[in-house]
Amino acid sequence: MNGKTLAGGVIVVGTGLLGTSVGLALRRAGVDVTLLDRDPAALAEAVRLGAGRRHEPHALPAALAVVAVPPTATGSTVAAVLDDRLAEYATDVASVKALPAGEVRALAAEPGRYVGGHPMAGREVSGPRAGLVDLFDGRPWVLCPEDHTDPQAVTRALEVARLAGAVPVTMSPADHDAAVALVSHAPHLVAALVAGRFVEPPDHELRLAGPGVSDVTRVAAADPGMWSEILAANAGAVAQVLSALRADLDQALDALRGGPGDTDGGKTALAELLSRGSAGRRRLPGKHGAPATVYVTVAVIVDDRPGQLARLFADVGRAGVNVEDVRIEHRPGQPVGVVELDVQPGAERALGEALLAAGWTMHGPALPSS
Amino acid sequence: MNGKTLAGGVIVVGTGLLGTSVGLALRRAGVDVTLLDRDPAALAEAVRLGAGRRHEPHALPAALAVVAVPPTATGSTVAAVLDDRLAEYATDVASVKALPAGEVRALAAEPGRYVGGHPMAGREVSGPRAGLVDLFDGRPWVLCPEDHTDPQAVTRALEVARLAGAVPVTMSPADHDAAVALVSHAPHLVAALVAGRFVEPPDHELRLAGPGVSDVTRVAAADPGMWSEILAANAGAVAQVLSALRADLDQALDALRGGPGDTDGGKTALAELLSRGSAGRRRLPGKHGAPATVYVTVAVIVDDRPGQLARLFADVGRAGVNVEDVRIEHRPGQPVGVVELDVQPGAERALGEALLAAGWTMHGPALPSS
Repeated sequence: MNGKTLAGGVIVVGTGLLGTSVGLALRRAGVDVTLLDRDPAALAEAVRLGAGRRHEPHALPAALAVVAVPPTATGSTVAAVLDDRLAEYATDVASVKALPAGEVRALAAEPGRYVGGHPMAGREVSGPRAGLVDLFDGRPWVLCPEDHTDPQAVTRALEVARLAGAVPVTMSPADHDAAVALVSHAPHLVAALVAGRFVEPPDHELRLAGPGVSDVTRVAAADPGMWSEILAANAGAVAQVLSALRADLDQALDALRGGPGDTDGGKTALAELLSRGSAGRRRLPGKHGAPATVYVTVAVIVDDRPGQLARLFADVGRAGVNVEDVRIEHRPGQPVGVVELDVQPGAERALGEALLAAGWTMHGPALPSS
Repeated sequence: MNGKTLAGGVIVVGTGLLGTSVGLALRRAGVDVTLLDRDPAALAEAVRLGAGRRHEPHALPAALAVVAVPPTATGSTVAAVLDDRLAEYATDVASVKALPAGEVRALAAEPGRYVGGHPMAGREVSGPRAGLVDLFDGRPWVLCPEDHTDPQAVTRALEVARLAGAVPVTMSPADHDAAVALVSHAPHLVAALVAGRFVEPPDHELRLAGPGVSDVTRVAAADPGMWSEILAANAGAVAQVLSALRADLDQALDALRGGPGDTDGGKTALAELLSRGSAGRRRLPGKHGAPATVYVTVAVIVDDRPGQLARLFADVGRAGVNVEDVRIEHRPGQPVGVVELDVQPGAERALGEALLAAGWTMHGPALPSS
């Protein structure tokens, strides 16, 4: 299709991180993009970055509007954009879908001209300067057509998702909201609650923290203002996941406290909960959208100074082995670290031998004998 | 001291991952180590790996016994080792401390000859072959002396911790158990509960999962059998953290569901919970035991094939910039990835310029202008 359905151009309303990134990606694909933002500074910056040209009053309607404003402002903005005929059709990029869909139905004269959208991409930073031309490359981009949605709206929004390099996925607004509540919003909130427990305890308790809890709470570092807005806009679906989790937590508490019929200190009940977690974890998508693969880890000891990683990866490259993932673990109080290289099962032997030959010290047992 | 207090040798009781690693580390330091395990195969393997020599019946008592058996068997094993005079003093490596301490007080004729210990190190794998000579290098090793503990027991256990390369930390058994419940056991259990929610939903919901939830649930992949034993052995302290979390969860649910006086859809209450999480997260120790540092991320686009990481790190090395951490993000469905390099604030400009000059494509906005 090569953007033919977007021949009338795209207007991006809201030139923050997502709006600017959409503009940059569509410009890269040769689409005519106009930009609108009530903040003149943000608009000027997006224009300067090459995300599109300034929208001119009384211009002909664009083929599609992409509304990229905060979730709670999305529905009313879409309705205004459609009713004012800034574009023939409209989509959005808000991280919740039922809320704006309901508002558009209530507010717009022709709600069928709108289809909800949500590119599954973002960054911890915001504003037009954080915009990236490749922000959506390879990421899922959810579209939420409903019974009353005009097929032209879907066709044009699909075209935007494809031209932006994303992988389009369609589902209902309710399914979308339930999915992101499950795999993003509720886990984020729970991680923040776990981290919130670290505010009061004395330092010596926190000194024992290792890499595990650091992973569990990493997302808690994100912007509380943006996330409280997202959670509030998807409150129903998030509350549903959290209620289920609360019941699981009660089961865990029962197991820990012992109860009638408990003969093993809750061990069996706890093992069942943990096994369920292990099974659930295996269902998360891995690299390249495929089911999570089990890699083999080759661990190497490195000095903590410039050039060591370079030398290591040069030697890894010469071994001809593809590294799937890398982690660096630092040891408290010591100027050395361990670099863990994940490789496809079977590749660890060749890699280990090559690195030993190159003078590296492996962190782990001797290589399995053949 | 150089192991002088251990001149009578150390007996390691239990030659799994931890016992074998203790033996390997003490042998490296020149200490005479004897090994004991009721599983003849595990014992033979540990001897073969060089963790020590076989304990001989009727040998003179060792200077110290290091008991490395499962948490629930630790107290009775320590008492037997002391009463049978296999060693003058004893310590252990169990990940809980109040349970074995109480059992030793109840069972041993002279409980003062025991001091509890817990090296904060481990692996996802087990058995003597998983043992590592440097498993404890730079890690905290907690010792839990009590009022009745003989100072000689503490001196000798401290010597083991130091010779194994660890950083000794002392606290009471109760403080230890509260600390590991807070920073390890409860977060582990909660991560497993979050992941347990992924067992039932349809595939399309899980397809939307991204790197955030993958971090939150990473630890849920660990062995449920071992972890149910740890949690059961520290049930009281874990239940206390979980109860507090349950109250936090209820606050979050109240905020999501709205209530009397709620005029903003719970946004303010949610923002407060999230801000608390962000503050707690900042208290976790970072690299080298120092407070967590905020690094600046330089993101580079790489092809997903052998040699690319080598070339990248060679160029990073030539830039003379020390990389603090590395993450590789894969894009679903695409043969490219993004390598995120964390560097000290101020170093990102030099690194970015060097990599641009070397022909790399940066993933992110243009470098900040000076």
